[in-house]
Amino acid sequence: MKKYIWGVDVGGTTIKIGLFYSDGELISKYEIPTRTENEGKFILSDICDSITTNMSNHDIAKEDTIGVGLALPGPVDAIGVITGAVNLNWGVFNVVEEMERLIGIPVAAGNDANAAALGEMWQGASRGYLDSVMLTLGTGIGGGIVSGGEMLLGHKGSAGELGHIRVRDDETKRCSCGNFGCVEQYASATGVVNLAKEILENEPDVKSIIRKENLTAKDVFDGAKTGDELATKTVYKFGFYLGKAIGITVSILAPEVVVIGGGVSKAGNIILEALDKTYIESTFHACKDVPVVLATLGNDGGIYGAARMVLNKARD
Amino acid sequence: MKKYIWGVDVGGTTIKIGLFYSDGELISKYEIPTRTENEGKFILSDICDSITTNMSNHDIAKEDTIGVGLALPGPVDAIGVITGAVNLNWGVFNVVEEMERLIGIPVAAGNDANAAALGEMWQGASRGYLDSVMLTLGTGIGGGIVSGGEMLLGHKGSAGELGHIRVRDDETKRCSCGNFGCVEQYASATGVVNLAKEILENEPDVKSIIRKENLTAKDVFDGAKTGDELATKTVYKFGFYLGKAIGITVSILAPEVVVIGGGVSKAGNIILEALDKTYIESTFHACKDVPVVLATLGNDGGIYGAARMVLNKARD
Repeated sequence: MKKYIWGVDVGGTTIKIGLFYSDGELISKYEIPTRTENEGKFILSDICDSITTNMSNHDIAKEDTIGVGLALPGPVDAIGVITGAVNLNWGVFNVVEEMERLIGIPVAAGNDANAAALGEMWQGASRGYLDSVMLTLGTGIGGGIVSGGEMLLGHKGSAGELGHIRVRDDETKRCSCGNFGCVEQYASATGVVNLAKEILENEPDVKSIIRKENLTAKDVFDGAKTGDELATKTVYKFGFYLGKAIGITVSILAPEVVVIGGGVSKAGNIILEALDKTYIESTFHACKDVPVVLATLGNDGGIYGAARMVLNKARD
Repeated sequence: MKKYIWGVDVGGTTIKIGLFYSDGELISKYEIPTRTENEGKFILSDICDSITTNMSNHDIAKEDTIGVGLALPGPVDAIGVITGAVNLNWGVFNVVEEMERLIGIPVAAGNDANAAALGEMWQGASRGYLDSVMLTLGTGIGGGIVSGGEMLLGHKGSAGELGHIRVRDDETKRCSCGNFGCVEQYASATGVVNLAKEILENEPDVKSIIRKENLTAKDVFDGAKTGDELATKTVYKFGFYLGKAIGITVSILAPEVVVIGGGVSKAGNIILEALDKTYIESTFHACKDVPVVLATLGNDGGIYGAARMVLNKARD
């Protein structure tokens, strides 16, 4: 008989919960709100209550459940201690121990960007590979590294800050992290818009029909697809910085594949075309053939990865 | 009774062989020449003969020997397949299988730059840490990554090409790897000299007493220590590019410590002082306190790391 796994992706406003068969098939998924009040003390018990109720409703016995995986918005170390999950108002504590105490079945936990990388490796774009890297291009840029089929954690679970790879030396505006010239400043949704604004400042006469107050990254990519000059110049710069960051990452880690996900990646192949030249130029020769592909699990990457963490932990 | 381990560092001209106790104590070390003729077919049997003779001379029984570790000048994958060891004239083959067949005791093998990182973690500058990064600044720059106490291999053992992190966009000269702007072009022994020459070309009137035909990296660091203007400017640029490469690496991997070794590192603390500012500026905030230290094992890092590989393999 197939066993069950729960994959939970905890965000600042919504908790996404997926029920999986252990072979990776997603049976059902739903969302509950994230209650961040009182230092987020209800979050784990809300997840526990929801899963317990569901198991009861679907006649799923604890013995048939391998465990619960949690993808969390902060670094999680090898034993389950989370730090810096500011979106949940959490302090520092062992989230695995606490959740196992509440729910009474095995729990695994990891950072959500790492989880997305693991999810894509299990059932998505990097399926079948053991060494992969994923960049999630959203409002910011998240990074996840899978090495030998396992999430690469680094000290205190802090590895994979791919959004903060320094790619430009003459930047005068600060990144949200406090540094200057991080790739997040050019290749996130916010970054694309900022690049367009910078080009407009330097070249006020550039031809463009996308010149507007609330310009979005989608406007820029849509514009580039129709040959808009401002949009095309912006996408070129986006590709230069993103390609460089990925080339550097690949030279350091030698993965088998790089996956690009997140809202910005919905623009499609134009992303891959934009980064390709600089990616190849910035990658060590032994790795120049490492493919860069688009994610396929969309917003479900986190629940897939969370479920896969449970399998990895059970195998250890 | 203590057990024995052999650590072997195979270079293009010399093979260094160390006999260790399993607790990490180096009992003795010596060198034999590397015979690279006939596609390097004598190399493994020379090592085998040397070790076998030594075991016999010192009354070391096979049962008291945990194994032999090989640090090799090329990428080695998880099962022991080596590729691209051009200095040994080797093709692609499983070096672990072949050596075990010859010597009849367990064999472990890995890349020499990774081995040096592992050796420093075992008995050197990064002792006691599980996550570390090492850069070996020699004629070129080698890189090694230790993650969770194990060498990070990447696909086909190609991870850790830290010398080929792109740190400069306007470079017009090619790196030995074929790319432009790799940190090896500025922070290796050759790179330091090239930086000095570039400064001399751009500022022919710069004050300097180190202006000479066969300028070496040592001349530059010695000059900087006495305040020589050309040398000081060169070391500043050296530190900028090296600090940036290390900051990027630390942001991606979140190690606990970074170790700098190789001939250039003999210049001492001036190396660390030169890179510090740009290192901090280029590192993600969670990792800005990761220390950068000088290696302590010198040229023995490879044999220590090779020996440690045997222990890691025995524990798996």
